[in-house]
Amino acid sequence: MKNSIITLLSDFGTKDHYVASMKGTILRINPGCTLVDITHHVNAHDVEEGAFLLGNAYCSFPKGTVHLAVVDPGVGGPRRPLLLVTPDHFFVGPDNGLFTLVLMREKLRMAVTPTDQKFFLPRVSHTFHGRDLFAPVAAHLSLGVKPEAFGPQIDSWFELDFPKPIIERGRLSGEVIHIDRFGNLITNVTEKELARFSKGRSLTVTIGRRKIQSLKKGYWEGKRNEAMALVGSGGFLEISVKEGSAQKLLKINRGDPVQVSPRSQAANSK
Amino acid sequence: MKNSIITLLSDFGTKDHYVASMKGTILRINPGCTLVDITHHVNAHDVEEGAFLLGNAYCSFPKGTVHLAVVDPGVGGPRRPLLLVTPDHFFVGPDNGLFTLVLMREKLRMAVTPTDQKFFLPRVSHTFHGRDLFAPVAAHLSLGVKPEAFGPQIDSWFELDFPKPIIERGRLSGEVIHIDRFGNLITNVTEKELARFSKGRSLTVTIGRRKIQSLKKGYWEGKRNEAMALVGSGGFLEISVKEGSAQKLLKINRGDPVQVSPRSQAANSK
Amino acid sequence: MKNSIITLLSDFGTKDHYVASMKGTILRINPGCTLVDITHHVNAHDVEEGAFLLGNAYCSFPKGTVHLAVVDPGVGGPRRPLLLVTPDHFFVGPDNGLFTLVLMREKLRMAVTPTDQKFFLPRVSHTFHGRDLFAPVAAHLSLGVKPEAFGPQIDSWFELDFPKPIIERGRLSGEVIHIDRFGNLITNVTEKELARFSKGRSLTVTIGRRKIQSLKKGYWEGKRNEAMALVGSGGFLEISVKEGSAQKLLKINRGDPVQVSPRSQAANSK
Repeated sequence: MKNSIITLLSDFGTKDHYVASMKGTILRINPGCTLVDITHHVNAHDVEEGAFLLGNAYCSFPKGTVHLAVVDPGVGGPRRPLLLVTPDHFFVGPDNGLFTLVLMREKLRMAVTPTDQKFFLPRVSHTFHGRDLFAPVAAHLSLGVKPEAFGPQIDSWFELDFPKPIIERGRLSGEVIHIDRFGNLITNVTEKELARFSKGRSLTVTIGRRKIQSLKKGYWEGKRNEAMALVGSGGFLEISVKEGSAQKLLKINRGDPVQVSPRSQAANSK
Repeated sequence: MKNSIITLLSDFGTKDHYVASMKGTILRINPGCTLVDITHHVNAHDVEEGAFLLGNAYCSFPKGTVHLAVVDPGVGGPRRPLLLVTPDHFFVGPDNGLFTLVLMREKLRMAVTPTDQKFFLPRVSHTFHGRDLFAPVAAHLSLGVKPEAFGPQIDSWFELDFPKPIIERGRLSGEVIHIDRFGNLITNVTEKELARFSKGRSLTVTIGRRKIQSLKKGYWEGKRNEAMALVGSGGFLEISVKEGSAQKLLKINRGDPVQVSPRSQAANSK
Repeated sequence: MKNSIITLLSDFGTKDHYVASMKGTILRINPGCTLVDITHHVNAHDVEEGAFLLGNAYCSFPKGTVHLAVVDPGVGGPRRPLLLVTPDHFFVGPDNGLFTLVLMREKLRMAVTPTDQKFFLPRVSHTFHGRDLFAPVAAHLSLGVKPEAFGPQIDSWFELDFPKPIIERGRLSGEVIHIDRFGNLITNVTEKELARFSKGRSLTVTIGRRKIQSLKKGYWEGKRNEAMALVGSGGFLEISVKEGSAQKLLKINRGDPVQVSPRSQAANSK
């Protein structure tokens, strides 16, 4: 298992020593593994945001990668630890919904709750399972320990009620689920859902008080200071501004609604 | 010395090229080493904060790890470079107190001031010893060069006057030494000192105008919007709020006092 | 090609999953390569800042390093992808001027525009060439694929009109091109230009309303709350404050002018 890869995602930030504590712990167990940060800037305790970012990042990594994700407001309490196995990946973290997007996209092979303390640090604190429990489990996994060795298999786990777009009165209604560094407004409407809804028709996207006619292919087709709609690199409908911030221009927050309608209808309703 | 590990801690931030310059320099000397960031977001010139974060992170890393730490307001001036050897670790950085916490926790094996220029870059600037001196010394160490080869052994070095809790009038008085990303208030009162002071008695923790009765085991036992006290993952007394920020709730700054007293006494004084 | 190194620079920030998507893609192609971040905090769409930071960082890395740089406001549009070969390094990114500083400092061996889709991801999005095109090209390069295999060689490319200092009326005039984390004001006046201009004379540096007499060697020679001038670690004239921020003290922005004159003249004009 040389060249094994472990990714890390958390809400620990990068100022404190918490991320380094997890990495040192992993390297004590598997000194040869490659560590890759997904992000540690998930908003504190924001499991939904963590689920979104993990769900978009994991799929770029090689077969066999272990994804260690710790956004864990319930640390030390009754929530269980969780180890998930999909055809190509392993996931380790708290059973609080952090893997919801992964589970929407992947076929689950096995779910285990790690209970065997021989894979934990000798002393497990009540406040930092990232270092004391999840990191060592991830490290042992990366060394080739079989998932079923960590504890009993389980057949239920916690999932977030991730907002799904709905079609009503001829409109496809979704919401903004993430706003990225550039101020791009990423919605929960997927490329597939758009295609199924549009049936080849031209579309109007409504967000806030703005109506956006038709979809662009890429940012370069937009105009400065003008919102455009397109399918972003993650396969979601996205509202953007060329070399600018759609968030600033439109003053939109996460959770705000977005609507897609056939163009003619929208034009009429103007 | 395959799989050698070098950690990096600095106040360089991650926007500028300074950290990359150190890493490139290390990889020119030891291309196979594993680089792990502890943090680069120490407040500019804040040696005490750097000492705290390093002192909490180093111990998670494997035997033989080289810890390169550069918070160095006196760069280029009379302060000496320092190389410390403990039973399990090496430390490289300026002799300005950055290793104070490490020295409080570890048995020192050897202290060296690196003076042999063959282990530095050919041209050492007056403003960036992190790249020109400390990084190459750390890299050569990671290749197995003996510590005593870098320069003369020394028997005195600079240490910060790190605030220690004191007991007076039946109270254990400490202070907040770090506030983490979650707004947890981490004090300089250790678990050991708490145990020795409490002698099994229940305790009251006073911070700002707030009195907190008894200690929790973990965050999940707390209530929202209510301060709780517990022993955190670093072994220090910590004031926290469940899924919230104790810093925001209590409006406390680093350096503010905290007091621990037996519960009955505190109850009386209410 | 074991131990090959790829550096990454972008304006993606570290909160989103974009950087991880590039890294995962690279590791799918070359699982053994070492990934080093230069920075991902280039201001959004700020090609000039990216060029400056890359131009200061690349030279610390070993021969054979691949530098992947993605500040790419024109992604998906007509701008071409670019692969540059210098005696010691490879550079991959958009042809928009991001390599201007590199080209000012290095002898170019070969310029290629990568067009062969067998080195891209199977599906190239219109909005994320960092993941779909540049990362895979960099990864294949790191495996030893010859640069000319990626596409046709070209003999023109885009370069920024990087501001160069000029001498007029006996003064050397430059500008602030970067402000670092410490508030140091880094100008475009190089050590060489200073030496050529001074001819051994003592110098006065004028910035904002401030005149600074003579150059210091390092920060430790300065006084608190007083601006000093020196040649920084990148070889540029820099205005700094000992353990403080020149930016805050002088209220200077990127692009603001700086002037160097012989000391006597400046003293007269006071």
